[in-house]
Amino acid sequence: MIKKAIGVFDSGLGGLTILKALRRALPHENLIYFGDSANVPYGSKSKQAVTRFSLDIVRFLESQGVKMIVVACNTASALALPTLRKQCRVPIIGVIEPGARKAVASTQNGRIAVLGTEGTVKSNAYAAAILKCNPRIHIKQQACPLFVPLVEENWTKKPAALLIAQDYLASVRKHRADTVILGCTHYPVLKKMIARVLGPEVTLVDSAQVVAQAVQNFLQKNHLQETAGKGKLTVYASDDPARFKRLAACLLADKITTVHLKKLNA
Amino acid sequence: MIKKAIGVFDSGLGGLTILKALRRALPHENLIYFGDSANVPYGSKSKQAVTRFSLDIVRFLESQGVKMIVVACNTASALALPTLRKQCRVPIIGVIEPGARKAVASTQNGRIAVLGTEGTVKSNAYAAAILKCNPRIHIKQQACPLFVPLVEENWTKKPAALLIAQDYLASVRKHRADTVILGCTHYPVLKKMIARVLGPEVTLVDSAQVVAQAVQNFLQKNHLQETAGKGKLTVYASDDPARFKRLAACLLADKITTVHLKKLNA
Repeated sequence: MIKKAIGVFDSGLGGLTILKALRRALPHENLIYFGDSANVPYGSKSKQAVTRFSLDIVRFLESQGVKMIVVACNTASALALPTLRKQCRVPIIGVIEPGARKAVASTQNGRIAVLGTEGTVKSNAYAAAILKCNPRIHIKQQACPLFVPLVEENWTKKPAALLIAQDYLASVRKHRADTVILGCTHYPVLKKMIARVLGPEVTLVDSAQVVAQAVQNFLQKNHLQETAGKGKLTVYASDDPARFKRLAACLLADKITTVHLKKLNA
Repeated sequence: MIKKAIGVFDSGLGGLTILKALRRALPHENLIYFGDSANVPYGSKSKQAVTRFSLDIVRFLESQGVKMIVVACNTASALALPTLRKQCRVPIIGVIEPGARKAVASTQNGRIAVLGTEGTVKSNAYAAAILKCNPRIHIKQQACPLFVPLVEENWTKKPAALLIAQDYLASVRKHRADTVILGCTHYPVLKKMIARVLGPEVTLVDSAQVVAQAVQNFLQKNHLQETAGKGKLTVYASDDPARFKRLAACLLADKITTVHLKKLNA
């Protein structure tokens, strides 16, 4: 019997942090990753645009016969999830709810900060998800639009990256949050630097593990989990697959053999 | 008689530096500006993707009855100009040739550096245009991919921007260029900072004036120039016109009354 794959997508490379956690938690599953390198970044674009890009990808993943889809992008989860769920036949899991739940479980002082793209912050999706778990949490949201280009350009270890982080995180320190959500799948790549700026007393919530856990729970509950054989990974990018492969190698421990080109709307 | 407009386009806001020069040089002309905010940035995307985006815009501008088109984007000029000229009925002027000619006229020591996006640098379009004018020029090309997000996020006056500029420009200083082409229409916004890093003995070539001059020459030669009445400006963006208008106000001295939404390929 042919294994049905799990579809995973992001605007670019960031979702690979989720993919990595999925491969570790679910080694028998076939995975299809789609990086929308033709339209990256999503963070500063409108709800309409992000929804349009996401719908195109979801339709492509459905055409590949996936059994479920993981929106490994906070901006797309924040802006497009309801529309995607309405227009799609397979179950879809986003990254916002699992991350919000973990942060609420972690905070001791009831003060949580959310780092995200402009789109994610403006959507208030994290704030809504956090307040649904516990309406007494004090929330500070901070947009960090330059973090995505820093990651996409592999500039995360340069002094300028630290300076940019210090600028963005000043408001988070002022808020005295003891728990900070890395609300963009690109940000875990900057985790060490963010931890250095915020100090050891702050817990950073990286949604990769919790999302992998949520996917595992869903598969088990619905008897869809594979239990044998090594899972296969297939990677698509909507533009310049060679560049995508080269940069992905910096983010994933596993080497990607091939990145296929799949143009959307072309 | 209805004035036919000049169409001007860029991946985003950068082309407004060209638009400003065009309005000053040609005050009687109607101008239509198109910022492709749904697909910005072009700089790290492939020739195929940039050509596809550019063709969509050129077709829209043609449908608006423009008399000529200015590709106010170095990446699109470098990667897509031959295809655009082949598939388009109206004359098209790019930004590379005028900038290259000005740089060759300016250099005293025969050493020119070109700052541009990854796409522009890889295309070698500036190097080819410079060597066509003078094959003995020594050329250093430097990709500066983070400059566009710094401009698009209005972060040009922060210390991190200076640090990023110092990093990119180290190779230019080493090359001992006396003339440096700002080979991306976003870069003139960073002109003061780049000048501060390179020192007063280096001439920065900003293609805005030369492109405006090239357009004026073309119109005169073909008896297409308007000589009376105040020119009208119409602005389109492919995503989030409100955001585009707000950021454009920081770049253009003139206020833009309205930015119209025009989705491409939707």
